Amino acid sequence: MIPPALTRLSRVWFPTKKRPASGVENGHAMLIRAGFLRPSHAGIFHMLPLGRRVQTKLEELVARHMEHMLAASRVSLSAVSSQSLWDKSGRLENTASELFKFSDRKNVGYLLAPTHEEEITALVAQTAKTAKDLPLRLFQITPKYRDEFRPRHGLLRGREFVMKDLYTFDSSKESALKTYDNVRLVYSQIFEEMKLPVLAAKASSGNMGGNLSHEYHLPTPLGEDHVISCDSCNYVANEEVAESVLSDQVVSDTTFRVWRGITKDRTKLVNVWYPKQTQPLDGGALREYTDLDINIAEVKSIIPDLDAGVEDALPLWSTAAAAGGTAVELVNIVDCRLPLSFSESLVGTTPTIPSWPKNLTPRNQVPVSVSVQNTNQWNKDRPLNLIRIQTGDKCPSCVSGHLKAERAMELGHTFYLGTRYSEALGATILVPNDERKAVPMQMGCYGIGISRIIGAVAELLMDEKGLNWPVAIAPYSCVIVMGAGVDEQDAVEVYRQINQIGRVQAKYLDVVLDDRQKTLPWKLMDADLVGFPIIVTLGREWLAAKRLEIQCRRLGVKQAVEITELPQIIAKLHGDL
Amino acid sequence: MIPPALTRLSRVWFPTKKRPASGVENGHAMLIRAGFLRPSHAGIFHMLPLGRRVQTKLEELVARHMEHMLAASRVSLSAVSSQSLWDKSGRLENTASELFKFSDRKNVGYLLAPTHEEEITALVAQTAKTAKDLPLRLFQITPKYRDEFRPRHGLLRGREFVMKDLYTFDSSKESALKTYDNVRLVYSQIFEEMKLPVLAAKASSGNMGGNLSHEYHLPTPLGEDHVISCDSCNYVANEEVAESVLSDQVVSDTTFRVWRGITKDRTKLVNVWYPKQTQPLDGGALREYTDLDINIAEVKSIIPDLDAGVEDALPLWSTAAAAGGTAVELVNIVDCRLPLSFSESLVGTTPTIPSWPKNLTPRNQVPVSVSVQNTNQWNKDRPLNLIRIQTGDKCPSCVSGHLKAERAMELGHTFYLGTRYSEALGATILVPNDERKAVPMQMGCYGIGISRIIGAVAELLMDEKGLNWPVAIAPYSCVIVMGAGVDEQDAVEVYRQINQIGRVQAKYLDVVLDDRQKTLPWKLMDADLVGFPIIVTLGREWLAAKRLEIQCRRLGVKQAVEITELPQIIAKLHGDL
Repeated sequence: MIPPALTRLSRVWFPTKKRPASGVENGHAMLIRAGFLRPSHAGIFHMLPLGRRVQTKLEELVARHMEHMLAASRVSLSAVSSQSLWDKSGRLENTASELFKFSDRKNVGYLLAPTHEEEITALVAQTAKTAKDLPLRLFQITPKYRDEFRPRHGLLRGREFVMKDLYTFDSSKESALKTYDNVRLVYSQIFEEMKLPVLAAKASSGNMGGNLSHEYHLPTPLGEDHVISCDSCNYVANEEVAESVLSDQVVSDTTFRVWRGITKDRTKLVNVWYPKQTQPLDGGALREYTDLDINIAEVKSIIPDLDAGVEDALPLWSTAAAAGGTAVELVNIVDCRLPLSFSESLVGTTPTIPSWPKNLTPRNQVPVSVSVQNTNQWNKDRPLNLIRIQTGDKCPSCVSGHLKAERAMELGHTFYLGTRYSEALGATILVPNDERKAVPMQMGCYGIGISRIIGAVAELLMDEKGLNWPVAIAPYSCVIVMGAGVDEQDAVEVYRQINQIGRVQAKYLDVVLDDRQKTLPWKLMDADLVGFPIIVTLGREWLAAKRLEIQCRRLGVKQAVEITELPQIIAKLHGDL
Repeated sequence: MIPPALTRLSRVWFPTKKRPASGVENGHAMLIRAGFLRPSHAGIFHMLPLGRRVQTKLEELVARHMEHMLAASRVSLSAVSSQSLWDKSGRLENTASELFKFSDRKNVGYLLAPTHEEEITALVAQTAKTAKDLPLRLFQITPKYRDEFRPRHGLLRGREFVMKDLYTFDSSKESALKTYDNVRLVYSQIFEEMKLPVLAAKASSGNMGGNLSHEYHLPTPLGEDHVISCDSCNYVANEEVAESVLSDQVVSDTTFRVWRGITKDRTKLVNVWYPKQTQPLDGGALREYTDLDINIAEVKSIIPDLDAGVEDALPLWSTAAAAGGTAVELVNIVDCRLPLSFSESLVGTTPTIPSWPKNLTPRNQVPVSVSVQNTNQWNKDRPLNLIRIQTGDKCPSCVSGHLKAERAMELGHTFYLGTRYSEALGATILVPNDERKAVPMQMGCYGIGISRIIGAVAELLMDEKGLNWPVAIAPYSCVIVMGAGVDEQDAVEVYRQINQIGRVQAKYLDVVLDDRQKTLPWKLMDADLVGFPIIVTLGREWLAAKRLEIQCRRLGVKQAVEITELPQIIAKLHGDL
């Protein structure tokens, strides 16, 4: 594409508002106020020119890594998939509540795809038939859809979102695992280029299939995940799979607490028993726990049907118990720090602990099965730890280090899928030397949340003046702002000086002239709000002494320079941002 | 984006098949065979890397014209719109059968937007409040959705398709019409750059609103529209709005024919009476007409509810008539070439022409209202011409010229909308000097069918060997093919020589090396199938005498050249293609 001779802000539509709507403003509100996007419906957004530009730059950055570093080919699959295809993989039912489903005029069932394992596997199955057709690495950057129960925080959890999804097809498990490692490496480089401090954490595979998976987390208090990292070794895991060395003990076996949950079918009440206080083995202050410290993921590993969204489980279970008809159950789960005698006191003919909630239909009127679980049923060697890992816990990997637990936002995910989809959808290759035998391909899938990165960067780097973009994805790297009385030809000359820099490292430097008919302070406020990484001003200093002012809020730079020094200084800043 | 040092075909996934599946192959079948795309569901396609590349180039070409020539800003609206918004504009009901509709988990109604007048008007209404905020020109290039009754011909009539849609907002009708003219000019330039012989035809506005509209047609036998153009002046119109000077007369008033249609509600039978033969006034051979010559658009202008998709109307109406309950009607419409006495003979107490179909419930058993229409009810000065304009008819504009009627494919459409949407959705601006009074904005909307252009170009330019792309949208401008025994370093040197050409006029020249482990004839067949505009071969001539072969099928070029002559010759070809 031919760049125009000069890019002018007067020709770009980005409606900004100078005043925030409320006192405390989050990244999403600021993206709206700075004219990057507008919400159109719940969890659905229109991207305005500046937002689209950020998105395009981010897409190109990610695509470049996919193509040049992984030799991946770019495709573009339809957002529409068929319910019958998803039925084959078994995910139509599994993920039903999150799918936007619809039918056409002939009553054929479709859905808006949240991910494309089914479609790409069916596509490759048609085409690749032998090991010679592999490996294949196919990626796309397209909108995805998920009917979130509670869309929130703008781009961070929307119902329509743009994702980069890469799918890999190998002929053996060994090469698939090598592919997996390569992609992990490239993911690090991508986040590095954006200068984002992303942690790659071991993760669980959920309903994707396979058994090797990592999440790429940006630590931020707005995150909905918890990521655990060691201060001494390279151990990083998300909370669901993280382990810690148990390094505390209960202070007294009488100080316990209970958190109550319920299953989605409302028939099973779950009592989670945990200590009120523990004493770290290496001394230090007492630790006190509340319901917020319960490791829900661990509870779910025992009760997969747990409804984590319920605040008050008792009335729901009480209703189900009173209604009769279905058998109700009461499951007691006991944290390993509580002694065996505690578990025993919950059951038997005369339980001394009131596991049966008060204010409920008397026990003898409802037939209920009561059980106790106090060991880790998946791994007998691992104690049943129902308390979230705490900052300060000991690292399970290096043992000497201490763990840090922090809230984080997932920006990417890598999965080694194995044959989960290739088997279900018939993506097979013939075995060499035995043309009659076919084996399923070895697959991997690898996502990066494009929309989510935009929302996360806005949130992470904003300050009270406005947004702050890494140059790699800024709508423009540099804006030239001219005050009253400045000759536009001078600004154009400054533009040319900066524009000739071209590229710094991998990052293209683009510049725009703010030629709008507004005052200098108005334009500078707007430039801060939008978050251009570099602002060059032709103001009073220019009129007086032909000196420009360079500002770079993120680096705390503000200096007056001669036009001759300009390209060198800007190239340096551009490299640092 | 940084281009890699060298682009290799071995790293691009495009599964080709050397043999066509059937004898006669259309453009869509060839796009599949050459690995550009794959159908996934009825009227829905996955774009493979080559197809996506063509689409991206086309998008960038169109976007460049929007941004540089019209100062339009690029946005990206969600594919999802809400049913309530479409209800406000009145289009939810009007276009219901073609909308993909669905509900979310909270039972809120959404739809996949086929176009975005509603969303963009609602967006601009929030933001622009005074004449100073206008003019606005906003465009996007995004997927659109339409639940076609019969999706066919691949990208030419799909259910998911990519469209460029531009929306303009002006503060007065005068400036809106000026905008309209500017866009028309830019549309010509866009088609010119692709070297497509597109005709801009006057058109009707259909259900879009407004009263000024043009269609941009590519003449092709596969087209579903008919476009009429004059061989002498610049008169071009689509059939719906075209007029011609009546220049024939009936040979005898007894030779008539009847075409029967029916309304969608099945209560109204439409008899269209037309001459079997006419005699051109300026002499020449007799013209004979059949039902295929009926101008359905003209019939629809009288009977808007006509169901054009019905092949045999009689049984449907007969059933409705026999069922009773609803009043049935019989409308006779008479072509202006048949004499008044003919119309008279259809009605009255003793009609001599059997307008009442035989084999039907006897007339006296069903109460039916019978009418005759033989004048143009919209324009009394214009005769009621029910016969399609024929090649050779006289031009209504210059009178001396003769018209050409040909099948064509609509690639773009421009509409001056006026206040059709701004009024319904409250997009108003305050009147200068009267801050209490608001007037609706003046709008225009302007589409270009991106997917459709790809399908149309494939169809139009293909030959028996494969596809043929204009360089402006070719997946790569030039491929370098090397035979056995050629040193790859030589091919890389040729690559460098061509790559340094860069841009020719507005068109970027990109080159790719076919380094796949295949024979030279196999690779040349593949290159022809894919349709690279320029093929450079290092074959036996290279080994013997360091001479390359340049091929360009579309221009009939095949010549041996020295490497020193290469850049100049290729730049010349690139400019011509």
